[in-house]
Amino acid sequence: MGKVICVGLGPGDPELMSVRADRLIRGAQDVAYFRKAGRAGQARQIVNGMVREDAREHAMEYPVTTEIPLDDPEYNRILSAFYEDWADRLEAMAKDRDVIVLCEGDPFFYGSFMHLHSRLQGRAEVEIVPAITGMSGCWTATDQPITWGDDVLTVLMATLPEDELARRAADTDALIVMKIGRNLPKLKRALETAGRAQDTWLVERGTMPGQKVTRLSETEGPVPYFTIAVIHGNGRRP
Amino acid sequence: MGKVICVGLGPGDPELMSVRADRLIRGAQDVAYFRKAGRAGQARQIVNGMVREDAREHAMEYPVTTEIPLDDPEYNRILSAFYEDWADRLEAMAKDRDVIVLCEGDPFFYGSFMHLHSRLQGRAEVEIVPAITGMSGCWTATDQPITWGDDVLTVLMATLPEDELARRAADTDALIVMKIGRNLPKLKRALETAGRAQDTWLVERGTMPGQKVTRLSETEGPVPYFTIAVIHGNGRRP
Repeated sequence: MGKVICVGLGPGDPELMSVRADRLIRGAQDVAYFRKAGRAGQARQIVNGMVREDAREHAMEYPVTTEIPLDDPEYNRILSAFYEDWADRLEAMAKDRDVIVLCEGDPFFYGSFMHLHSRLQGRAEVEIVPAITGMSGCWTATDQPITWGDDVLTVLMATLPEDELARRAADTDALIVMKIGRNLPKLKRALETAGRAQDTWLVERGTMPGQKVTRLSETEGPVPYFTIAVIHGNGRRP
Repeated sequence: MGKVICVGLGPGDPELMSVRADRLIRGAQDVAYFRKAGRAGQARQIVNGMVREDAREHAMEYPVTTEIPLDDPEYNRILSAFYEDWADRLEAMAKDRDVIVLCEGDPFFYGSFMHLHSRLQGRAEVEIVPAITGMSGCWTATDQPITWGDDVLTVLMATLPEDELARRAADTDALIVMKIGRNLPKLKRALETAGRAQDTWLVERGTMPGQKVTRLSETEGPVPYFTIAVIHGNGRRP
């Protein structure tokens, strides 16, 4: 009996992977990872040079990404069938061996593996190796602490409605906003409404080659989907 | 010229340290860490067996912990002098060699090193190695994803006033509460007011020997200061 082991890869710098993740990936005979069809895939790229030459690789290619709106029932149906299919395949593989599933960031924090994790319950033994979140890589890149003392930290997705973003940005000490991409203009307006735009940093490719840290006020956009916005807290400090 | 390198140790399991942290600690000639006077210190214990026999160790012992209330000006004065003193010493050491400062969790996320980081600006080169947060170790220990889709995540310190805790707990999808310890009865009341008490998990010693995951409703307390409360989000899931 094997296990499905989802290994968090962290923010992108391979040296920021955990010792356990490094050991599991280098020893893996079966390695699966999500990617957009026709792309190398970010997760697979992070482990370049670490995967054994004789490992079997399983590219789990998303059937859709942005072609269909998220709220279209068809989007849900297609993605659900995709996850069902890969849950079946991983379950079958794990009958006689361990399978390593690579996940960017920290698997349980807005990760795609969760959709396989829920489907594999009771069907295969599943283990999760936590990792440094992308946001942690990004706040470290700003070279300023994100939270002090009793600071409240809020994490928002830029996909939320503008008024919701503005209300929550005004009511927190520290703020992280993810999934920005095409939502940048909406996020900018929301942060201006909240009076927080001047305090906002944007981090692209945190901890990776080409890392870029800019002020929101100096950014015209467009920015990549995985850009993260950072507002630092200002709590108690002796 | 050397550097002061603050190395995040992660949630406690030494295998969850980053490859970079592992490498830096095993090679270090000077290792500094915070601890309570008279204790071995959690950070130092995590790296047991990793520090070179000939390394110089620098225990930075807190002059006070809970003997004086946080809002007493004397508390601030004593702690500030303590941080000034160690900033001076680290600056002096970094003149001719690298110094590794060990920090539990992720250094920029409610970490103590921030108080040295701010004081060392312009005086020494400082590098931060991010790490897996304690909260990530804890949500992974619950074996359920913390956030899905557009979930809002809020991170609160249990030291906040009860009505503030209740208001924010009622207005978020996923919730993490840290610094619980003696604040447990207050937190319990706040989560009951918010209607979230039944959904709350408590994680003690996440990823470490003796890890304990319980429902808040089944916990009488007292619990250790580093216990973390977890409420999972329930966002979009195809």
